[in-house]
Amino acid sequence: MSPEGTHKIVEVTASGRSGYQIVSGARTRLPALMRAAGVDGSACLIVTDDNVAELYGSAIENDLEEAGFDVSTFVVRPGEASKDLEVVANLYRWAFANQVDRATPVVALGGGVVGDLGGFFAATVLRGVPLVHVPTTLVAQVDSSIGGKTGVNHVSGKNLIGSFYRPTLILTDTELLSTLPDREWRNGLSEVLKHALIRDLAFFDWLRTNWDSVLRREEHIVPEMVERAAQIKVDVVIHDELEGGLRRILNFGHTFGHAMERIAGYGSLGHGEAVALGMRAAAFLSAERGADVDIDALGHLLQDIVPTSIPPMPIDWLLQSMRRDKKRVGEVLHVVLLEEIGSAVVASDVTDDELRSALQHALA
Amino acid sequence: MSPEGTHKIVEVTASGRSGYQIVSGARTRLPALMRAAGVDGSACLIVTDDNVAELYGSAIENDLEEAGFDVSTFVVRPGEASKDLEVVANLYRWAFANQVDRATPVVALGGGVVGDLGGFFAATVLRGVPLVHVPTTLVAQVDSSIGGKTGVNHVSGKNLIGSFYRPTLILTDTELLSTLPDREWRNGLSEVLKHALIRDLAFFDWLRTNWDSVLRREEHIVPEMVERAAQIKVDVVIHDELEGGLRRILNFGHTFGHAMERIAGYGSLGHGEAVALGMRAAAFLSAERGADVDIDALGHLLQDIVPTSIPPMPIDWLLQSMRRDKKRVGEVLHVVLLEEIGSAVVASDVTDDELRSALQHALA
Repeated sequence: MSPEGTHKIVEVTASGRSGYQIVSGARTRLPALMRAAGVDGSACLIVTDDNVAELYGSAIENDLEEAGFDVSTFVVRPGEASKDLEVVANLYRWAFANQVDRATPVVALGGGVVGDLGGFFAATVLRGVPLVHVPTTLVAQVDSSIGGKTGVNHVSGKNLIGSFYRPTLILTDTELLSTLPDREWRNGLSEVLKHALIRDLAFFDWLRTNWDSVLRREEHIVPEMVERAAQIKVDVVIHDELEGGLRRILNFGHTFGHAMERIAGYGSLGHGEAVALGMRAAAFLSAERGADVDIDALGHLLQDIVPTSIPPMPIDWLLQSMRRDKKRVGEVLHVVLLEEIGSAVVASDVTDDELRSALQHALA
Repeated sequence: MSPEGTHKIVEVTASGRSGYQIVSGARTRLPALMRAAGVDGSACLIVTDDNVAELYGSAIENDLEEAGFDVSTFVVRPGEASKDLEVVANLYRWAFANQVDRATPVVALGGGVVGDLGGFFAATVLRGVPLVHVPTTLVAQVDSSIGGKTGVNHVSGKNLIGSFYRPTLILTDTELLSTLPDREWRNGLSEVLKHALIRDLAFFDWLRTNWDSVLRREEHIVPEMVERAAQIKVDVVIHDELEGGLRRILNFGHTFGHAMERIAGYGSLGHGEAVALGMRAAAFLSAERGADVDIDALGHLLQDIVPTSIPPMPIDWLLQSMRRDKKRVGEVLHVVLLEEIGSAVVASDVTDDELRSALQHALA
């Protein structure tokens, strides 16, 4: 991989004050980039998980120590179960025991779980300290680290507790993806594909052309793919930081997918796998409504992302779950559809019959 | 009290999107003002405490029900102990049991504790729902409901967990103050006086002139006092929403006062009482450094606010506590001083000897 190719800086100025940067580049530059972003604390708190700690923890700790930070690391168990209020309470105790002050940065080093958890912790300790994301999974690099969403789960549902909080820095190093398990890679591709579908026909065509290289995670292809996919997310969220309107299109495939995750039981379907199935449903529904979407071409790509064996999910349960999805406001269910590849709309008039046949198609 | 005089609307547009309003006026207009502020949910969650619920709960619930809201009320015990993560967890459970969605407003009906707790809950449930403050104490009306600070306490200290979150509406009805216990009134006057001292000589002179009427809570004087004191807080926070600089002057008397609350033991000194003692210390220190501050004139007013009997607080303990105050960034202790009445500055070069003699003067 060419280091030069990965050092592109995408600045996000959004609506105001602090702004943030996405830096595609070597993780070894983390301390320097933190200083450049205005982080001037002496202490530094790293939140990570067992897997990432083993692979990258020591190297990043050492770099930060050498740059003058006094580093403490909190390692959580990998997986959704760590996105829990009890874990947040433990993080607070740890932070106060380590003399956190308002200049102390929190580095969330990991995938979506660590980013959401570490982000919520950073957003709420001392009413907010500098947050640095170092996303280590494809999903985190192109999606979850971007846009300021933080949160933990509740027994009533996923991500029900959280806040919008802008990171001071996002350092995206595509080299970190080389150690990602294959299933995690495919889960991430689901969000990559989603971004292309809702916003960028040229990127979709690029993905189709390079699909085999993408699946093989080839080094000449990964940085460009991550950068283009991340840029789409950035473009959407700077237009709608608090999810009032446009940002809803990022839920393409997700209203279906969330219901599938719930009904299949969390963990039995990966998030990206569920979203891939959800996109299959949403694309089918879009085509049924007359959109110019080549279901077969899309299905060919999705075939490599959806799980090889789909757990049993009764359609009626899925329907009921979708109607209760927290994305609804008041009583209306919003479903994101495609007008064509590269252009999404939000529909609020989707009938149960339409949802049913889309789900049947997706799960067939 | 003239109803017309209390209906003044102060709009705060600050830096962006939602903005909020301070409405000095009758609580009976709450449902209409919520609708006018864009609250379109059908459910409505009220967070309040036992005392306020008994006095005003039913009337406000009824008004909201009549306006078409489906109201649920969560009543906490009065006092700082309710600003606790466990209480927040109970609020989440209650909210999800009551089908909260992102359009559901949270009405924080009460004093500072309810505002901070309800605000943090509103800021973090579903990543933020509309927050409506109906402050019922003088402190809450002129200070804590304004500026977006929310939070709960931690065993390591007060307000260590929280967020900045902008309310959709603040409805300030000075009639609610008629039922306030006298000690709470004096606690609030401490913040009123603080606002005059740091920012508004004319308001300070007005307070001196009308001091006896102020102490007697006379109806012709209260609305103007609340409005002027609240406006000062608004002016400061719109210039510095995230407490980067100017907002620090609002800590006048508080660095001393927080230490006194901690050392005396929470509850033994009221917050306003501690701040009054803290302002005595800070004003003395300002005068020692040559500021044009009439210590005797100020002391005359403060005499009516400080507690009649001051609990024993060893000076060395207070010093140590101040040095550990969370307001410090890195290693520097910031103390707000007066240049003259109506003008504050932040000093970061205050010595232990200066702090010691200021504390000795204040506690004498």
